[in-house]
Formats: sequence, structure tokens, C-alpha cells
Amino acid sequence: MSKPLVLPALTQFVAATAGRNMTKTAYFAVSAGVVLMVLLTVNPSEEAGHLWIKSLLWACLAFFVFEWVVRLRHALLAQRGPAYALSGRGLVDGVGAVAIPIALMFGVSPGTAWLLGVLWLLKVIPGIPGLRQLRRVLVQESGPLLSVLVIFLMVLFLASVATYYFEHDVQPATFGSIPAALWWAVATLTTTGYGDVVPITLFGRLIAAFVMICGLGVFGLWTGILATGFAAETRRDNFLKTWESVSKVPFFAALGPSAIADVTHMLRTMDLPARTMIIRKDQTGDCMYFIAAGEVEVDLPGKKVKLGEGAFFGEMALLGNNLRSANITTTQMSQLLVLDLVDFRLLMARHPDLAETIDAEARRREQENQ
Amino acid sequence: MSKPLVLPALTQFVAATAGRNMTKTAYFAVSAGVVLMVLLTVNPSEEAGHLWIKSLLWACLAFFVFEWVVRLRHALLAQRGPAYALSGRGLVDGVGAVAIPIALMFGVSPGTAWLLGVLWLLKVIPGIPGLRQLRRVLVQESGPLLSVLVIFLMVLFLASVATYYFEHDVQPATFGSIPAALWWAVATLTTTGYGDVVPITLFGRLIAAFVMICGLGVFGLWTGILATGFAAETRRDNFLKTWESVSKVPFFAALGPSAIADVTHMLRTMDLPARTMIIRKDQTGDCMYFIAAGEVEVDLPGKKVKLGEGAFFGEMALLGNNLRSANITTTQMSQLLVLDLVDFRLLMARHPDLAETIDAEARRREQENQ
Amino acid sequence: MSKPLVLPALTQFVAATAGRNMTKTAYFAVSAGVVLMVLLTVNPSEEAGHLWIKSLLWACLAFFVFEWVVRLRHALLAQRGPAYALSGRGLVDGVGAVAIPIALMFGVSPGTAWLLGVLWLLKVIPGIPGLRQLRRVLVQESGPLLSVLVIFLMVLFLASVATYYFEHDVQPATFGSIPAALWWAVATLTTTGYGDVVPITLFGRLIAAFVMICGLGVFGLWTGILATGFAAETRRDNFLKTWESVSKVPFFAALGPSAIADVTHMLRTMDLPARTMIIRKDQTGDCMYFIAAGEVEVDLPGKKVKLGEGAFFGEMALLGNNLRSANITTTQMSQLLVLDLVDFRLLMARHPDLAETIDAEARRREQENQ
Amino acid sequence: MSKPLVLPALTQFVAATAGRNMTKTAYFAVSAGVVLMVLLTVNPSEEAGHLWIKSLLWACLAFFVFEWVVRLRHALLAQRGPAYALSGRGLVDGVGAVAIPIALMFGVSPGTAWLLGVLWLLKVIPGIPGLRQLRRVLVQESGPLLSVLVIFLMVLFLASVATYYFEHDVQPATFGSIPAALWWAVATLTTTGYGDVVPITLFGRLIAAFVMICGLGVFGLWTGILATGFAAETRRDNFLKTWESVSKVPFFAALGPSAIADVTHMLRTMDLPARTMIIRKDQTGDCMYFIAAGEVEVDLPGKKVKLGEGAFFGEMALLGNNLRSANITTTQMSQLLVLDLVDFRLLMARHPDLAETIDAEARRREQENQ
Repeated sequence: MSKPLVLPALTQFVAATAGRNMTKTAYFAVSAGVVLMVLLTVNPSEEAGHLWIKSLLWACLAFFVFEWVVRLRHALLAQRGPAYALSGRGLVDGVGAVAIPIALMFGVSPGTAWLLGVLWLLKVIPGIPGLRQLRRVLVQESGPLLSVLVIFLMVLFLASVATYYFEHDVQPATFGSIPAALWWAVATLTTTGYGDVVPITLFGRLIAAFVMICGLGVFGLWTGILATGFAAETRRDNFLKTWESVSKVPFFAALGPSAIADVTHMLRTMDLPARTMIIRKDQTGDCMYFIAAGEVEVDLPGKKVKLGEGAFFGEMALLGNNLRSANITTTQMSQLLVLDLVDFRLLMARHPDLAETIDAEARRREQENQ
Repeated sequence: MSKPLVLPALTQFVAATAGRNMTKTAYFAVSAGVVLMVLLTVNPSEEAGHLWIKSLLWACLAFFVFEWVVRLRHALLAQRGPAYALSGRGLVDGVGAVAIPIALMFGVSPGTAWLLGVLWLLKVIPGIPGLRQLRRVLVQESGPLLSVLVIFLMVLFLASVATYYFEHDVQPATFGSIPAALWWAVATLTTTGYGDVVPITLFGRLIAAFVMICGLGVFGLWTGILATGFAAETRRDNFLKTWESVSKVPFFAALGPSAIADVTHMLRTMDLPARTMIIRKDQTGDCMYFIAAGEVEVDLPGKKVKLGEGAFFGEMALLGNNLRSANITTTQMSQLLVLDLVDFRLLMARHPDLAETIDAEARRREQENQ
Repeated sequence: MSKPLVLPALTQFVAATAGRNMTKTAYFAVSAGVVLMVLLTVNPSEEAGHLWIKSLLWACLAFFVFEWVVRLRHALLAQRGPAYALSGRGLVDGVGAVAIPIALMFGVSPGTAWLLGVLWLLKVIPGIPGLRQLRRVLVQESGPLLSVLVIFLMVLFLASVATYYFEHDVQPATFGSIPAALWWAVATLTTTGYGDVVPITLFGRLIAAFVMICGLGVFGLWTGILATGFAAETRRDNFLKTWESVSKVPFFAALGPSAIADVTHMLRTMDLPARTMIIRKDQTGDCMYFIAAGEVEVDLPGKKVKLGEGAFFGEMALLGNNLRSANITTTQMSQLLVLDLVDFRLLMARHPDLAETIDAEARRREQENQ
Repeated sequence: MSKPLVLPALTQFVAATAGRNMTKTAYFAVSAGVVLMVLLTVNPSEEAGHLWIKSLLWACLAFFVFEWVVRLRHALLAQRGPAYALSGRGLVDGVGAVAIPIALMFGVSPGTAWLLGVLWLLKVIPGIPGLRQLRRVLVQESGPLLSVLVIFLMVLFLASVATYYFEHDVQPATFGSIPAALWWAVATLTTTGYGDVVPITLFGRLIAAFVMICGLGVFGLWTGILATGFAAETRRDNFLKTWESVSKVPFFAALGPSAIADVTHMLRTMDLPARTMIIRKDQTGDCMYFIAAGEVEVDLPGKKVKLGEGAFFGEMALLGNNLRSANITTTQMSQLLVLDLVDFRLLMARHPDLAETIDAEARRREQENQ
């Protein structure tokens, strides 16, 4: 009789998580599931511990099946059932829920079927921070990366045929065919070097030396390409994130758009939870802060001052006094813009009006505090 | 009797392919040939499958011989026969055609002769994208790369003589001569580390540790050089490709040459086939597009608008509304210039007249759509 | 009776070292302690040499206990005892002092207890130059570095489950469980390749090849991220260090703040001990120097000229004469600002007034010397 | 009686080579000597070939002794004998000359004594191109490189003590002492991975996995540092080399010093021997050339035009016609300044007067050629 009451509550609970990346429960379930799956292979005999592991695995599976069913139902009610089911996330949820039951149904041995639990790991992918950034770098640089891959494959083939020719009479067991030589070549070109297949003739070894040096070259090219792409992407990301925040600070709003672009290049965004100490008294300071969102509390002797959105602090340490004069803590979740000492000096040199505003405020505060 | 009819047709077919990088047929033939050659070494006994493989290999060879002969004839008719025959491509075609027959003629065993089929892979080289760019980097940086190579060789020689001195009494089998010690040194300096030859004396191991750390250093230098060269080359390539397109867009033509150079640094060229969706409704947008060549179709509610060469679109998402307001698709093969959100803001700040033109157009469109 | 006299002297000696990074004595004690600890494991039999090693190790331990006790007492007297005891350095000192005695007390065998001597190495950490810079890079780039680490772990898990599936029937001894397969995967993904666990089935080897190539990719991403972060950090560090010194040189003080920022980007700080030769006669010169602090002596024929704070020298070699005309040596610990030939030319082009000042001074000196 | 006549001639011959990096004879002698030394270890039995090798080695040694003696005599006559003898080069020459005779004299076996021939390789060092540049990078970045090295050593020690603790009971043969564990750690941290010493306990393997990942990190830091340093050094080198040449071209001399600095950043120096074809007719051109020194010949239809120092050519391909219109060849050893298409456009935009001069000259030439 209580089913009609339980179901809406559960629907609500999981539906609320459908939009977010991952709940803590889901992270825990994935970790537990994968660890249990690993343990199952360590101790595959039918002992007491083994039964415990199995029961917990079934519980994990039940959770994932439940999660998928509720999400699917939620999507169907919102009339985008197929959209969810066929999206990347929907497929991962679905495969995680049905792969093991289907495998068991088709008579796959339990030991093998439970290995499919590793697919639960795929649920973590959307939660990886910075993944979008990495994908952009790989997409942007896909052209040269593919060129290097083609060169890699070519060296691989030419070297394994040549080594096969020189070695297969001397070592018929290890260099018996070109696929075997390819196995050797890939371990050598990536400088992994297992040592299970090693050339012993003079020419085989000369080719091997050449392949190893090529390996360093391929590696260097790959790294060079990725480093170049990553540097460009990092610059772009920081700019975009900061531009949003700068436009919220009235202090900068008076500047023209060209100066704002200038300022944006210099600032760095920082998101802080509540009750985090930003500045500790008597430490040396090398940056000042603007508050894009939230609030901070300055712990002056005898009183506590609160600074809200658009205010700035920490400028005194940059204007001569090297030591911070008070503890400053966030009172709520806040977003700060950090201005480094280096950029502070450049900014002051280029925009003397900003320098005056900061100077005046600093002088006002100092008088107030005495 | 049909020969006079067949020959011109064939000549025409292959001649048409002579100028292009590679036909799909040729790519297929190369792949098939190399895979068959690999399979031949896996199963070298005279079974049914083996005969099939051999026949297909002969077919591949026939195709390459035919291709070479027709190309050669075509070149001779155009009175540049020797030029083709001695060009890089002509030599690759020629070697691919005659190497195996000649080897078989001179009594080389078939198993060995067919290994020469790996040379067919060289036909793929001109088709590798970005190869020219890689070659430019290697040429430009050849000086420092060679210095590092000489240092590499020096460390190699000094280390192998020293290790030979300490090890050859203890391990006469593996460190019996300096070439054997060189083999160990190259596997160590490239951090491959097969483990087939390993020093066991104290001094031998100290030298080995030094060589490994040198290996990291050599590697780091090599990568640093290539990364530096690659970054410069990427900048140069993008600039050249974009400059061509920018000059075709009337919107930018009004700017002076200095501003065009500025704009060129910000745009990225993108070539798209027909019927590709560029903008999807309700997605977040972070760039706008200029049409350098081709045409796109905007799928507005109730009507379809076509935009041709010189037009721009996607600017609304950058001017406040974060979501794209319509699907936009290419109607033919088009070349677009992409302006990133970051650069859009910089450009607007530096060239207020451009900003006005875009603003006016955006307002006009919005009114039209309402 | 002499204890009251000895104790203050010792307190003074060690207290004086409490503020500094490391004394030479401490460096010597750490090196000696670790070497002795290593030797103890080489020759664990109870011979004469062994006794010597043990006595010296006890001496090292006594030194560290003494150092900790005196520092603790010094901190207590200054009423910041708990602050020191719980600081990073205090904990390292404390653990180095008490870990071995406690282990011996609890019945751990001496051979094992003395291994804890390796913890003495941690005392060296605060003395590593540039460590703060490295930490800043790692903190700034922690986001993308963690993304790559998560991808690394994911490839690791997926690859080891797949390889376990294909290999554990064929090689039950080495691929008997997923932890064993993980061991293989980590050695392969880092391209270490021990070769103790190697796949032998076709699919196992295909996965291995994929993992190796992923390894190169992960490596490349990691390096690209660190290279980007390091380049930014180096620029920042040099700027800050130089800004301090530039403001001390009257020659630059006349420039406006924007020009000072400009100059700061060009100069490099250099700290030299007394009696160091900076310029050697008749060598080719490619930089000039400004004295930020200290004094140098110019060894002209027949006389010696001293230049103090704010003076510059070495400009003649940049103004036409390629060879240095005199030996120049520091007379005391000095801080110099180095201006490279490249930047000298840029600076002269941008600030003609500076060029005139340097020219006039150079002409004055030349007349004087004739 | 002919000795007084032979000696001056020989003195003259070798003295003439004393200033240069290396003569071809010396390169040949070093290569021959090292190859012979290697061969000696391959075939150490007393056969006919062996005697030949020995005689040739003695000849090489005689050459190096003779070279050293004559250079020393030449230096003594010029009254800088000790300066030469104690310089880096003098020491290398001296050691190459006397090391083997002294070793033989002190009763070292010939097989071992001749190994010292590898020291002859050191004579090649001054001839390595770009070595000075590499040394500058290493010196400039020595601070952070050393930090990373200290961290490397620390991880090495901590990891080997920990692994020794977990492994030495299980594998007393391979992990019998900490030096043995250090050997394992260095092979693991550099990702070499010989596989001769491999942990087998769970904790040993966990530490190993951590060490491998640290290895990637150390490697990444090292590469990042070197890449940063190398990029800075390359910029500096190109600037200096080009500045010299730009000042020789009258075309640029009219520009102010700030514009010259600008132009210098864009040009690249190129040294060409006589009779080298610079431009080939009908190829696509993407750069123009200025003659800093030397002379070129333009092969126009019907006549040959010579262009000397300060002239420029190749500009037509950049001003619209994509194909080169004539072959251009050097007539003598020449130094050219190359202006890339990218930079040509930027230069023309920034300095319209230069653009006019080039345009006018191009129009004049075109009229002349018609």
C-alpha cells in the first residue's frame, strides 16, 4: 500500500540528481563496485568473505539499475525519453545497468560477467574537471597529431619487416612472423622495452637503435604539439572566465572596453567556500583581491569590517608594507579576482587613474584604523 | 580488336589520378597488399588459404605495375617522362612495381621477395596531412637537433667504453666487445631498457645511472627544441591560411593593412562539406563566423534565409544572448572564418567601427525576425 | 659545575641556526647519517667496521636529538614553543630525533630501526633552491594535472580488466587477478616495461600496444601542462626580483613607471660574492651591467677605479668595440643588473634619452683613459 | 740532413690548423682511431687482421702525438705555451697523446690501454655546432634544473629504503642492501625498467607505481624547464645574428633604430656557398631575400643580371604572382636575409614607405623585363 508513496519520493530523489554531474552516492557506489570487482578476482574461491563480496556487488548493481530506471522514467515524463536513452550519459547508465544481467543470462561464467563492472567507471567521465579543455586541445591539434601517428605507424611497419628479415632465421620462436615483429617494434618505438623479444643480429640491433631514437623523436613531436596547443587553450580559458567576473566589478566598469580587455589578461578568478582564510596576518603578501561575488570579513583589532561585491582588499601589502595587517576570511561562498604584484605594477603604470583610486582608498582605510 | 579502345580509357583513368595525392583505389590496394604480405608470414605453409593470399598479392602487384606504366606513358606523352621517373613519387611508384619481380628473377625465395611489398607503404607519404609542416620544423631546427644528436652519440661511446672496461671480465658473454656495450648503451640512453644486457658491478651500475639521467636530459632538450619550433610554425601556418580568406571578406576589406594583419591573427579558417550543421539551436555559442566562400542556410521559424560570401552569422550569441537562436547549415562546400569569443571582444575594443557594423546588422536581423 | 656555562653557549649556537635554512654542520650530519645507514645494510655482520658505523650513526642521532631539544627550548623561551613543534620544520626535526629511539624501544630490530634514518633527508627540503617556484607551478596547474591523472587511472583500470580477461587463462601465474594486471598496466602505461609480466595473446598484445601509445599521450599532456606553467612562473619570478633592484638604480629612477616596467622586463639580476671577476680583458662582451648594490673595481692601466651603487659598466663593448678593455672585479658582495646586447639595442631605440646618457658617459670615460 | 727543412714545413702545416676548430684530417683520424679501437675489442685474438688494426692504431696515436707536440711548440714560440697546455683544448690534445703510452708503460694490458682511445672523441667537442647555445640554456636554467635533480634524488632515496624494507626478506638476492634497492629505483624513476630487479610484494609494487608516476613528473618538469629556456635562447640568438646583417643593407639603414629592431625580429640569416640555386623558376614562392654580403645572378630570358650587396629579390612572388619568374643563383659565398610572406605583410602594413620602395623597384623591373 505504501508503494504509491515511496515511488514518488524515490523518483524525486534521483530525478534531482539527473541534471548534476555526479552525486556523492554515485561516486561511492562506483568506487565500491570497482573495488569489490577487483577483490572478486583476488579471492575467487567460495568462502565466507567471497559471499559478502558477491552480495555487495549485487547491491551496487541494484543501485545502478534503479538509478537508470528512475532517470529513464523521469525523462519519459518530460517527453525526452529517447533523447536521454541515446545520449552519451544515458548509454553509459544503461550499459552499466544491463550488461552484467544480460551476460549472466547468456550463460557467461559469473567470474567473467562481473568484470563488466569496470564499465561503471565510465560514469565518472562527465565529472572529470578540465576534460572539456583537454578535448578542445586534442581537436584543435588533431591534424598534426594524426600526421605524427601516421609517421609512427610507418616506422613501425618498415622496422618490423626489416627486423623480421634479419632475425626470423636466427630466432624463429620470437620473430616467427611479422605480427610478432610488430609487437617487438611497438614496445621499442614507445621506449617501453619489455625485453621479451630482443634482436640479436648486428643488423637487427642497428635497426632497433634507429627505432629507439625515432621513438624519442616521435615522443618529442607529440609533446611539442600538445604543449603548443595547451598553452593556447589555457590563455583562452582564463580570459573567458575572468571577463565575466571583471564586468561585475564597478571599479573596472568605468574603464573603456580596450582597457577592460587589458585588465582581464591580468586577473585570475578564484572560487572559495565560506569561512576560508584568504589573508593571514603578518605573512608577506604578493597580490591583491577584488570581490566579484560574495563577502569577506576583515578582522581588525577591536572590530570586524565586512566588504561586499565590488570591493577590493590586500592592496596595502603592494603599496609598500610587505606584511599583511589583518586576517581576512570569507563569510559565504565567494568569487575573487586575484591581481598579482607583477600585474599590479604594470596596471598602475598604464592606468594612473586606477592607481589614484586605490591609493585614496588605502589612505582612507589607514586613517580609519588609527 | 578492342585494345585500341581499352587503352585510351585506361590511360585516361590513371592519368586523371596522376596529379592527385592518392586515389581511394590506391589506398585500398596499399592496405590490402601490406595486410596480405603480413598474413603470408603468419601462415607460410602451402595450404588453400595460402594460395588465395598469393593470388591476391599478385593482383596487388599487377595493379601497381599497371599504375606505374600508365603514369610513365602519360608523362612521356606530356614530354616530362624522365622528370616523373626520377621524381620522388616516380621512384616510389617504380620501386613498388619492379622490386618484387626483380627479386624473384634473381632467385630470392618468394617468402623474402614478398617482404619488399612493405615498400608500397611509401606511396602513402605524399598523402600524409601536415607532413610539409613537420618537415619545415625539422629543417628549421636541424642545427640544435644535430648538436643534441652529437652529444647523444658522445655519451653513448664514452659510456659504453667505460662500462665495457668494468663489466667485460665479469660478464664476458654479454659485454664481450664494445659493439655489445654500445647495444646496451643505446637501450639505456633512450630509457628503453630491454634488460637483456644489464651491468652488475658497482661502477657499471653507477655509469648506467648516469646514462639514464643523461637520457632524460637528451630527451628533454630534444622535446624542448621541437616544441619551440612547432609553436613558431603553427603560428606561421595559421596566419598564411587565414590571410587569403580575410582578403575575400568585404567586411574586413575596408580596414587598413595594419588592421587586417591584426584581424588575421585572430581568425581561424575552417573548411566544411555541404549539408553540415554549423550552429545547433539552443546550444551555448562561443564564436561567430564569416563566410569566405560558399553559402549557409539559416533555419528561422517559418522561413529559410540564405547567406552568401562575405556575410557573417552567430554574432547574436556573443552580444548578450548566450543561446543560439536558429539552426544554421551549409548548402555547399564552404570556407568559414571563425572568430572566438575572446578575440571578438578584443577586436570590438580595438576597432569600434567594426563593432558598430556588427551591432547594426544584429539589430536589423532581430527586428526582421520579430 | 661547568654545565651552566656550556648550556648557554650551546643554546646560543643552535638558536642562531634556527632561523636559517640549514647550517653546513646539519648538511654534513644528514649526508653522513644517510651514507652510514646505507653502509649498515651492505655489511650487516658484526665485524669491526660494523661497530664503527654503528657508533657514528649513534653520534649523528645524538646531534639531531640535541638540535631538536635546543631549538624547542629556544622556541619555548620565545613563547612560540607549540608553533615551532607543530610547524613543518619542527615536525621533521622531531621525527628525525625520536623515530629511531622509539622504534628500538618497541623492540624493532636495529637493522630495521636505523632505516628510519632516511627521514633525516627531509631536513634538506627547506634548503632546496627554487622549491617554492615549483610548488607554485604545481598549485596553479593542479586542475589540468589532476584531469590527466584521472584519465591515466581510467585507462589503467579499463586496460587491466581487458588484459586480465584475455590473459588469465593462458598465464594464470602472472595475470591471476586484477591487481596483478594493474601492476602490468602501470609499468606499461608509464613506458617503464619491466618485462616480468607480458601479454602473449593477440588481443592482450593489441591492448598493450594501445596502452603504450596512450602512455606517450599522457606523458605529452603532462609535459605540455608543466611547460606552460613553468614558462609563466619564470617570467613572473624574474620580473619581481628585478623590479626591486631597478628601483635602487638612480639611472632608471628618472623614467616614468611605464618605462620602468619596460626596463624591468629586460634586465636580469645577478648576485656575486666579493673578489669575483665579472669582465675579463680582451674577451668579447655581449652585455652591460648596472650596480644595484655593492662595489666593483676597474683595473685600468696604471690606476684602479672604483664604481659604486647606481653606476654602470661594460657599455663600451656594446657601443662598437667588441672586446672588453679592462678587467673588472667585485670588491664586496654585490648585486648587478645585466642588460643583454639584444635588449640594450631595443632599450636604446625606445628611450633615446637613456642612449644619450650612456653615450656621454662612455665618451667621458674614453677621454679620461687616454 | 733534411730535418731542418722538414720540420719548418710540418710546423707550418699544423700551426695553421691550431686556430681552427678541427681539420678534416683530424676528424678522419678521430673517426678511424675510434673505429679501430672498437674493432680491437671485437676480435682480440692475435691474427693477421689484428696486427693490421694495431699498426693503424699506432699510426693514429702517432698523428695525435705529433699534432700535440707541434701545437705546443707553436704556442711556446708565440710565448703562450702554458696558456695552451692548460686550456681545455690543450689538455684534451695532451691527454689524447700521452694517456695510452703512459698506460702501456705502467704495465696496463694493451687491450685495456687502447680503450683510452675513446678520449680522442673529446677533440670533436669544440666543433659541435650550437654547443655554446646549449651551454647557455643549461647555465641560465641551472637553478630549477638542480631543484628537480634534488627532488629526483630524494624520491630515489626514500623509495629505495621503503622498497628495501618490504622486499629484502622476500628477495634477499636482489634487494639485499640499499645500494641494490637504489639501482632498482634509478632504473624505475627514469622509466628505463630493465626488469632484472622487480618488487613482488604488494607494498613494494605500490611504491614502484608511485615511483614510475613520479618519474613521468620529474621528466615533465625537466622538459618544461628546458623548453622554456630553449625558446628564450633561440629568440636571442636569431636577433643578434640578424642585427649584424641588417645594418649592412642600405635599404633598411634609412629606418630609425626602433624600426630596425622591429625588422630584425622578422628576418632570418642564411649563409650560402657559391653556385647554389636560391630560387627555381615556376616554383611557388613564400619569401623574399635581401643580400647582406655576396652576389647573385638572375637568369632572365636572353640576359643575365647580377645583383650585389644591399639589393633584394623574390619580391614579385609576394606581390601577387605566386610563381617565381626566373632562376636565381649565387655567384660567390653569400649571406642573405630571408623575409617570410607572413612578416612581409606585417612589415608592409607597418612601414608604408618600405612598401612603396619595394613596389617601385618591382614595377621598374617588370617594365625592364618586358
